[in-house]
Amino acid sequence: MRPERLSAFSDGVIAIIITIMVLELKVPHEATLHALFELTPLFLSYVLSFIYVGIYWNNHHHLLHACPRVTGGILWANMHLLFWLSLIPFATAWMGENHDANLPVAVYGFVLLMPAIAYYILQSLIVHIAGPHSQLAHALGADIKGKLSPLFYLGGMALAFVAPWGSKALYVAVALMWLVPDRRIEKAVQDHTPAPR
Amino acid sequence: MRPERLSAFSDGVIAIIITIMVLELKVPHEATLHALFELTPLFLSYVLSFIYVGIYWNNHHHLLHACPRVTGGILWANMHLLFWLSLIPFATAWMGENHDANLPVAVYGFVLLMPAIAYYILQSLIVHIAGPHSQLAHALGADIKGKLSPLFYLGGMALAFVAPWGSKALYVAVALMWLVPDRRIEKAVQDHTPAPR
Amino acid sequence: MRPERLSAFSDGVIAIIITIMVLELKVPHEATLHALFELTPLFLSYVLSFIYVGIYWNNHHHLLHACPRVTGGILWANMHLLFWLSLIPFATAWMGENHDANLPVAVYGFVLLMPAIAYYILQSLIVHIAGPHSQLAHALGADIKGKLSPLFYLGGMALAFVAPWGSKALYVAVALMWLVPDRRIEKAVQDHTPAPR
Amino acid sequence: MRPERLSAFSDGVIAIIITIMVLELKVPHEATLHALFELTPLFLSYVLSFIYVGIYWNNHHHLLHACPRVTGGILWANMHLLFWLSLIPFATAWMGENHDANLPVAVYGFVLLMPAIAYYILQSLIVHIAGPHSQLAHALGADIKGKLSPLFYLGGMALAFVAPWGSKALYVAVALMWLVPDRRIEKAVQDHTPAPR
Repeated sequence: MRPERLSAFSDGVIAIIITIMVLELKVPHEATLHALFELTPLFLSYVLSFIYVGIYWNNHHHLLHACPRVTGGILWANMHLLFWLSLIPFATAWMGENHDANLPVAVYGFVLLMPAIAYYILQSLIVHIAGPHSQLAHALGADIKGKLSPLFYLGGMALAFVAPWGSKALYVAVALMWLVPDRRIEKAVQDHTPAPR
Repeated sequence: MRPERLSAFSDGVIAIIITIMVLELKVPHEATLHALFELTPLFLSYVLSFIYVGIYWNNHHHLLHACPRVTGGILWANMHLLFWLSLIPFATAWMGENHDANLPVAVYGFVLLMPAIAYYILQSLIVHIAGPHSQLAHALGADIKGKLSPLFYLGGMALAFVAPWGSKALYVAVALMWLVPDRRIEKAVQDHTPAPR
Repeated sequence: MRPERLSAFSDGVIAIIITIMVLELKVPHEATLHALFELTPLFLSYVLSFIYVGIYWNNHHHLLHACPRVTGGILWANMHLLFWLSLIPFATAWMGENHDANLPVAVYGFVLLMPAIAYYILQSLIVHIAGPHSQLAHALGADIKGKLSPLFYLGGMALAFVAPWGSKALYVAVALMWLVPDRRIEKAVQDHTPAPR
Repeated sequence: MRPERLSAFSDGVIAIIITIMVLELKVPHEATLHALFELTPLFLSYVLSFIYVGIYWNNHHHLLHACPRVTGGILWANMHLLFWLSLIPFATAWMGENHDANLPVAVYGFVLLMPAIAYYILQSLIVHIAGPHSQLAHALGADIKGKLSPLFYLGGMALAFVAPWGSKALYVAVALMWLVPDRRIEKAVQDHTPAPR
């Protein structure tokens, strides 16, 4: 199997995930401003998850582009990643509908943590095949973002039982960390194709 | 990332958006003509949105075809556009189910306005990279349709609180403006790959 | 726009249509044989629609393969076809849930008739561009199947108000007519890439 | 039609199937650990089906890659396979929501059995065209896994009415048999591109 094939299938799955999330944004029964405003937390959760899935799509694309060949291990590590990504709409809807509650906010962190781990496994397998002197290995460098993100998710999960708004702030911060290209970090880490966590 | 890749992913998302809208067309419980006729406003909303998403797909395809390379800015401007497009099924269903109400008609206009703005941003970034003497820049010309459309949407949003049927007429008019190839305008504006608003 | 692009987008939409139909097959609340058997009419409707959409996908693919270039007319004739195809899941579910009722069976016939007409329009536009001596024009020949099918659908729609089972028999017969390769007809009509109606 | 085209369409359908399963994982109304734990059987069913569909995607891809050309028979054998695969989300949700009940567990086995048979038909047609000395025929060899799997599914279906947990153990065992590359079996059977059952 060529990496392009795995990439195309993954793109399809990710396109579906990012689009079906909006189906959770159920049409209100009443045509009032109040009914619309009640959707705000769900809407904001949806925006955050859309950005996360977008970051994954982007990084995943670059990662597979740097993959010399597809082994059985890489194929299933990729399926493992897609599995966890496919749970994001569920966690997004649960958090959005219960934005004051502790557990859904912690579960959302868990559902961000697991694809981060899955991405790390996939990345490690591909770096192993590409070799330590490959362009990919150099681009990843120390992979500081990749190593920090799971810690933030774990922090967010713990914080959810004390101050859920703090967890959400952390989740937003990690997304921004991956979105905003910090020149200094970029130079230091030579961070071109790393994983969002 | 090559523009073809971004185009394929966007095509996937747009194909899903245009198809899941029909899921909102819930099967009536009764097998009567009355139950079927009750779906008429929702059905017409669906037709209008189908045409809008179809126009976007077509123009977006031509736009990315003229894109020399994908920068981080273009990638996220594209995601931003897809995000707003993915809200069209929601607004379509809400307007279709509350066709007499003011707010859903205004929100529908808003959900047309936002992808128009997002398209404009994406288009500007691509023109900036392609250069002022590129084929794309010439094709867009003064981009009169592109500049008029947001004004019509804003007008439709305001009108929704006075005469919702007037807003809908405006939304239909804008769609027709993009659909019907007006020879004179076409010549004047050299309007080959502009954005639907 | 190249025909391959239009074909890929259409394939995406058709893949979604054929797959989301199963979502209408709602999971029964009870875990009994009776609850399962109650799904039989819906299941059979789903099978029939799956075959119809499959025939369309196959023929549509061959049709676009024979298309020399994509004009604005062909692009929108294709969108028109996809629009009517996207209504098949709706009509399938309504007929499946009300298999004794007259109206849903007639509406199902209507929802088969409209894509048949849309396909005919698309085919005519492509034949017009390919020319009367093109391989496509020869392959279509008199297009007897294509001309008979709408008559059968109209017959099925009328019959639905007298004997719905007769309509269903007609719909099944048309599907079989397209599925089973009749050597004699095939030779006579030189029928390689025509439209299912 | 080229095999690549059939492969791309099938990939699209399989990507949708594997992703819409998660939609059955309905968001709980309460934000409690108890509500989350109640989803466990459904979640585990989802994991199992995700793995099965993943195995099918992988094997199907290799099978079509070895297909020299697409005949009408292969096209419809492939649609037949996609049809049965598209029922997996239904059976997964029914078993997941009624994990103690006998019938849904038996039906899940049936919904695994049917694509296994459909895959066998497709594989036989392709081997017939590729020829008995083709690489594919050698790779399949005695196809022991392919012949054992349906027996296990039948066993699981019968066992479901006595000990549903035993059926589930069988279903998991078959999935593992396809997932875990057993070196000895692999050598003996020269089993590179066979069907999951």
